[in-house]
Amino acid sequence: MTDQTSPPASTVKARLPRGLADRGPAEIAATHRMSAAIREVYELYGFEAVETPFIEYTEALGKFLPDLDRPNEGVFSFQDDDEQWLSLRYDLTAPLARYVAENYDKLAKPYRSYRSGFVFRNEKPGPGRFRQFMQFDADTVGSASVAADAEICMMAADTLEKVGIARGDYVIKVNNRKVLDGVLEAAGLAGDARAGQRLIVLRAIDKLDRLGSDGVRMLLGTGRKDESGDFTKGADLAASSIERVFAFTSARGATNEATLANLRLAVGSSERGAEGVSELDDMAKLFAAAGYDDGRVVIDPAVVRGLEYYTGPVYEAELTFEVKDDNGRPMRFGSVGGGGRYDGLVARFRGEPVPATGFSVGVSRLLSALQAIKSPIAVGSDSRGPVVVLVMDKAEIGRYQGFVTQLRNAGIRSELYLGAAGMNAQLKYADRRHSPCAVIQGSNERDKGEVTIRDLVLGAELAAGSKDRADYLELRSRAQFPVAEADLVSAVRDVLDRHK
Amino acid sequence: MTDQTSPPASTVKARLPRGLADRGPAEIAATHRMSAAIREVYELYGFEAVETPFIEYTEALGKFLPDLDRPNEGVFSFQDDDEQWLSLRYDLTAPLARYVAENYDKLAKPYRSYRSGFVFRNEKPGPGRFRQFMQFDADTVGSASVAADAEICMMAADTLEKVGIARGDYVIKVNNRKVLDGVLEAAGLAGDARAGQRLIVLRAIDKLDRLGSDGVRMLLGTGRKDESGDFTKGADLAASSIERVFAFTSARGATNEATLANLRLAVGSSERGAEGVSELDDMAKLFAAAGYDDGRVVIDPAVVRGLEYYTGPVYEAELTFEVKDDNGRPMRFGSVGGGGRYDGLVARFRGEPVPATGFSVGVSRLLSALQAIKSPIAVGSDSRGPVVVLVMDKAEIGRYQGFVTQLRNAGIRSELYLGAAGMNAQLKYADRRHSPCAVIQGSNERDKGEVTIRDLVLGAELAAGSKDRADYLELRSRAQFPVAEADLVSAVRDVLDRHK
Repeated sequence: MTDQTSPPASTVKARLPRGLADRGPAEIAATHRMSAAIREVYELYGFEAVETPFIEYTEALGKFLPDLDRPNEGVFSFQDDDEQWLSLRYDLTAPLARYVAENYDKLAKPYRSYRSGFVFRNEKPGPGRFRQFMQFDADTVGSASVAADAEICMMAADTLEKVGIARGDYVIKVNNRKVLDGVLEAAGLAGDARAGQRLIVLRAIDKLDRLGSDGVRMLLGTGRKDESGDFTKGADLAASSIERVFAFTSARGATNEATLANLRLAVGSSERGAEGVSELDDMAKLFAAAGYDDGRVVIDPAVVRGLEYYTGPVYEAELTFEVKDDNGRPMRFGSVGGGGRYDGLVARFRGEPVPATGFSVGVSRLLSALQAIKSPIAVGSDSRGPVVVLVMDKAEIGRYQGFVTQLRNAGIRSELYLGAAGMNAQLKYADRRHSPCAVIQGSNERDKGEVTIRDLVLGAELAAGSKDRADYLELRSRAQFPVAEADLVSAVRDVLDRHK
Repeated sequence: MTDQTSPPASTVKARLPRGLADRGPAEIAATHRMSAAIREVYELYGFEAVETPFIEYTEALGKFLPDLDRPNEGVFSFQDDDEQWLSLRYDLTAPLARYVAENYDKLAKPYRSYRSGFVFRNEKPGPGRFRQFMQFDADTVGSASVAADAEICMMAADTLEKVGIARGDYVIKVNNRKVLDGVLEAAGLAGDARAGQRLIVLRAIDKLDRLGSDGVRMLLGTGRKDESGDFTKGADLAASSIERVFAFTSARGATNEATLANLRLAVGSSERGAEGVSELDDMAKLFAAAGYDDGRVVIDPAVVRGLEYYTGPVYEAELTFEVKDDNGRPMRFGSVGGGGRYDGLVARFRGEPVPATGFSVGVSRLLSALQAIKSPIAVGSDSRGPVVVLVMDKAEIGRYQGFVTQLRNAGIRSELYLGAAGMNAQLKYADRRHSPCAVIQGSNERDKGEVTIRDLVLGAELAAGSKDRADYLELRSRAQFPVAEADLVSAVRDVLDRHK
């Protein structure tokens, strides 16, 4: 609140900073409904809510340490009064790791938890790219068992159905970082000396979606020149190694068993690779035991997003139905969330390995999917505004306030017109508010102890229709009618019932 | 997500920055319930949700412009990549003003809206003072009528009852900045030359609660030395002027009419003062018309908090029941929210006056009041944890997962034990999770196609009670019993029903 007793000498431009957005009532209500549905599933699975603040010590977040010349690289950072660097959280995982490490002994482990909230990225905003956006995460900390990963995959499937995605319109795809490591080992890329080369391979196959296999083949080999002429250095793999990498990414068979057989070939004699295949095998068995092997959850080595970050199983929730892209062309909706195992994150604080796995839903991305399929969660039902009581005579405002109070006490959403305009402008206001009806009392009605109810929905129909209609008079009498003051609430309720 | 394939060389200390807090499941659930109740009342009153981002241009927020030597005075600020200053919002009012100014033509006015969310203060944290806290605001923009202020006062009363505060345990107190201005005018403090003196008076009476009337009397006169010996300069008012100020702050009578009569005397011949009294009179009539003059909403000139900031009516929601302070002494709970008219805030952007009035609830303060009176909204009901299915034989984990899936499909909150510990530790885990029961299947049970249900609530009673009890054997047979696998869900449901 600022001191505003005198008008300012110069005005300030009202503008939202780039990459940030305001949210209106429909989007807020849809987010509430969607979050409640997600919470319900997560709690059914035994996950409990926990929330951390928006600000953490920069060193606790890791990754993006502020550069003194440019302190805002990737994250929003600022110095505390004791010179320590603070940052706005850029995801919900790093703060969870801090929370678990700080409260380690008092948490029952394995510790299942969930949280939703805004995260912040100090990046160049672009279309659909925001600097503040909401995530909804679930994580299990303290379990090395891939049963924890499998559970989260099944929970992701249940969540998508709960918010209104039909079975068959989504798939949870599962892969494993260790299998890729094994493939690279079998391709002759083991050892610390080859770490840089492995990273180039990881980043190359992460571009499979965007560049297709020909582009990735170039990046795995000698390199690739893009349309702008920029050259990206390749990983310099031999042709046989490139084939091995593609044997991995295209290993998906008709069944999980077939996929696993292909992967066993791709990892050759690599122990780490075999361990990864065995983990996927264990997960496939858990999916089968719970009945999720009906296409809801599948092993798919083409899932490469995040393989650079995660240490074991990786999973991604994809919507398979088609929507129109910006140019009207049909496209698969695609990913709405993903996650995986990140056994090193809590270890940063504790100096001992703490296994963990987690899943993050992109809230606005999932919400736009629900809007695309017109899920009741996204669309809602109640689009009617409040009843508006007009102020015809300012001296009688107490009387009008009394009408509004009666309606509100009866649970009817309603408001007193609070502006200074005349009757026509008040009715226009009621229309802009999508009011179902207006309550009007001039001095004539007042003398008779009556109010006039004006049905604004019928009124709009009358105005749009032909005056020759046989039922015009009957309609008109229903669209606006007087009632005794004592019958105000029941008359308004009748009008609301007409337009349910 | 950070790259964590190798353990870090040195560990980072896991610690929350000062003045920030994590929130656990009970507090999060209570906040959800309370927010839903508040939303319900606000929507009944025709207010609609709108939310703005956490970050705004610093100049749009006003008041705290970043000083280049110390850019974080009061607010958290940082520079964008184009050198513009950004800040974390420090309240929900300044961003609303930016929103309304930016979307002025597309909003139906008067514009009623509400929003909740975290705000940030870069201040020295202390006991009960946080650098991130939640507010729940409602504002009406574009109405100069005090009917808008009166409505928000009544809505505040309804809100407190909705969240569980009994009528008689709260009061909404109303005052008016213009009345105080009139009193100061009548005390000879009119004119620009006296602005500094008026500010001293405003700040002095703002300390009435803390210093009592003797302390304030000194501040209105020659000045006051506090316990540490620091001297605060006074306003240098004449004795008669001091009496006039106290005639204002102690003007509350037995009824609103009596209070208004006292205020008419206190403002003397000041026109601005008379305008303020007339506004309070209009509001009193609206409270009476709606039936809120039964002690729910009262005119009380002793409400001085915020008078420095607001431009017309000021209101405060106070809880009147007693709680124990930190030393065990009874104290009135006090304020949980307040607000008033701030006609200049949107004007900063539009260069023309835009009347507005708003109310802000301190969410954690209200929540702690609800905890003090054990309101169902704060306390909740479901304190039981999930059913835990033990893993007795790792090779059979798919079978255990199947049990969990059956329970979840039946809507029963349940989890598979995901750790590596033995049976006793698993049962301890279930106790820490407050599980109502555990599901156990060793090889003996498996061979018979059975599972053992262990009622952990009855089990705890048995362990605590004497073994001599006559019903011991009967209790023990109910506390742990075998059922056929096919009866798993119904047997678990029976146990849950026992402990509802």
